[in-house]
Amino acid sequence: MIRKARETISPIVQNTPIFTSQRMAENLFIKMENLQKTGSFKIRGAYNKIANLTKDEAKKGVIACSAGNHAQGVAISATAQGIKSYITIPSIAPLAKIDATRQYGGEVIIAEGLYDDAYELALKIQKEKDLTFVHPFNDEYVMAGQGTIGLEILEELPDVKYIIVPIGGGGLISGIAVAVKEQNPNCKIIGVQTELMPSMKVSVEKGELTTVEGANSLADGILVKTPGDKTFEIVKKYVDDIVTVSEDEIALALLRLLEEGKVSAEGAGAASIAAVLAKKYDFKNEPVCAVLSGGNINIMTVSKIIKQGLFKTGRLTEITTKIPDRPGELIKLLNILKEIGCNILNIEQYTEHSMVDVNCYVVRLVVETFNCEHQNSLYKRLEDEGYSYFEELN
Amino acid sequence: MIRKARETISPIVQNTPIFTSQRMAENLFIKMENLQKTGSFKIRGAYNKIANLTKDEAKKGVIACSAGNHAQGVAISATAQGIKSYITIPSIAPLAKIDATRQYGGEVIIAEGLYDDAYELALKIQKEKDLTFVHPFNDEYVMAGQGTIGLEILEELPDVKYIIVPIGGGGLISGIAVAVKEQNPNCKIIGVQTELMPSMKVSVEKGELTTVEGANSLADGILVKTPGDKTFEIVKKYVDDIVTVSEDEIALALLRLLEEGKVSAEGAGAASIAAVLAKKYDFKNEPVCAVLSGGNINIMTVSKIIKQGLFKTGRLTEITTKIPDRPGELIKLLNILKEIGCNILNIEQYTEHSMVDVNCYVVRLVVETFNCEHQNSLYKRLEDEGYSYFEELN
Repeated sequence: MIRKARETISPIVQNTPIFTSQRMAENLFIKMENLQKTGSFKIRGAYNKIANLTKDEAKKGVIACSAGNHAQGVAISATAQGIKSYITIPSIAPLAKIDATRQYGGEVIIAEGLYDDAYELALKIQKEKDLTFVHPFNDEYVMAGQGTIGLEILEELPDVKYIIVPIGGGGLISGIAVAVKEQNPNCKIIGVQTELMPSMKVSVEKGELTTVEGANSLADGILVKTPGDKTFEIVKKYVDDIVTVSEDEIALALLRLLEEGKVSAEGAGAASIAAVLAKKYDFKNEPVCAVLSGGNINIMTVSKIIKQGLFKTGRLTEITTKIPDRPGELIKLLNILKEIGCNILNIEQYTEHSMVDVNCYVVRLVVETFNCEHQNSLYKRLEDEGYSYFEELN
Repeated sequence: MIRKARETISPIVQNTPIFTSQRMAENLFIKMENLQKTGSFKIRGAYNKIANLTKDEAKKGVIACSAGNHAQGVAISATAQGIKSYITIPSIAPLAKIDATRQYGGEVIIAEGLYDDAYELALKIQKEKDLTFVHPFNDEYVMAGQGTIGLEILEELPDVKYIIVPIGGGGLISGIAVAVKEQNPNCKIIGVQTELMPSMKVSVEKGELTTVEGANSLADGILVKTPGDKTFEIVKKYVDDIVTVSEDEIALALLRLLEEGKVSAEGAGAASIAAVLAKKYDFKNEPVCAVLSGGNINIMTVSKIIKQGLFKTGRLTEITTKIPDRPGELIKLLNILKEIGCNILNIEQYTEHSMVDVNCYVVRLVVETFNCEHQNSLYKRLEDEGYSYFEELN
């Protein structure tokens, strides 16, 4: 079924590159589904599902509900096959995703509220118009489409020993696991979830489908409260282990992918790489392929992650210190920074601040430093020069 | 010579993917040399040069001078062939580049000062140790190595009508032009330079090698004051046109590559895509392949470009307005922003400001907006509510 899916989706889906980065990790291969059309793997399953509609179903059209990648995957797949698609999107979704879905030819219906509201609206429209509902994961054709990634990996990396895959509803890992285990039962399939919503992990541990409540996450693409029953059966059978990653681990993976891998990933997409970098599983130095499942991240979030990462790796430093209330004192401080080679990004001087007394002002600076060593030499120098300072961030 | 180079470099160099993004431009194909090992094409030429040393030369080792991609290309190429490499790097170079060069096995010698100082030091060490100098562009073997990109493009895109390539010293475009014109003389080769230092363009127009003074640029990788004499001869013969791009055009290309292409590019690397997006040449809707030559960009620069781009595309808005000096007025303003759906990034209230009079304070806000339309509806609403405001940025 997966081989057939591969043939079916070949007119539109790209065989995405597999990439190594010596600087990120030895023996790590990254399957770049962020470079897939629409920026994620979702087009594979959606296209396969839609290609397998009956003539009558195709004539009536399809409907899907999504705030993200699935919306774009369904829209482009339906349009490419000359089929009408309706996509309900919750009103909280980023405008960029709504625009992209429209650009791919989907008729977008905005549902006031959250995902559940959009889902209900989709069901209502489906009944009214007698459309086929394209489920984002709990569907054989969708799973088979995603499974084509497994075939591509085995073809390019016949010696791969581990494949690590993000899990939301479980469609992606189910498809890949079936494709891989049939051909190479010794290759281990490891799943990754965000520790904020590990619904599949908990379900497998309890032996039954379990709903997990959770918070917001950088990995919004894999925030699924209840796995699918079909995907759950396959995961139980074929997936060897499921690990979880934290928000900080995901953020660091995003930053390293950008800086060392030169690619932009979304949080859910980078979860697999985060698990490898944070050593969440012992791969025994054998070849690992991590599926980077998508790259559709809000550019504002990228900017925030970069900033946060720069603070954490000692390349941005925040310092708050006091200077005497005398002309020339700020210049004196700035000269020290110049000598050490610290570029200034922000500077504020407070005349109203709890630390201000009659003889001094408070200065808050954000400066560029090279690394933690450079940061420490800055602290040391300021101390030697008699400045009292405290670091506010990190 | 280029076919032979291709064989020579095959053990280490990746055949990088060629990518399309429907959202960026129709008929645009991007050759992703940012996904090359070391993050740029430079490894191709360096490896080919070093592989063609005599036994005696190989025994003595090589030296290069670079503040960027060439340093890494030479270091990894020499190390892979068991050859000692010395790299002089000016002290102004970013620490990340120095670190990467060391990681690839190069012996780094820091030269106090700028590129010219490092170059002089390299020549001195070359003489002392009788090393082979690996020139970054003005060398047949280096050019032939870069030319392998041309072969890869023709193989994957036999119908390509235009290839557009960034020009610094001219090594990359010379190699590609020779490779392509020999096989497909009808394919046009277009060069791109930054308008801040168009040394090759000016040289071609004057018919003689010309030195151009210039300023800093986002595209630091193609800031070359004087082209090579060897590359100049080839460019005159084979390159069909040279266009220039502005800093803003490069910044926008970097942002669109990140947001729509999901890849990180460096300024020089994105110059070719910038020229396509800014319609600097009429490609008559024929297939164009733009060479994205590298991805080694300072992550802080990425962060700045994102911020700037968000302001320019109406997704960040800066507003400075006055509020009456009364309790509850700030909440009133914030409630309006909440109603319109504007997330606040920065807020400052000034009690000391030239606009402050006895009855009011000044508030400066940076808020997230969806797009220019949303931005305008924000302005309109504030006006309707009686706020006077002025926009400071853009």
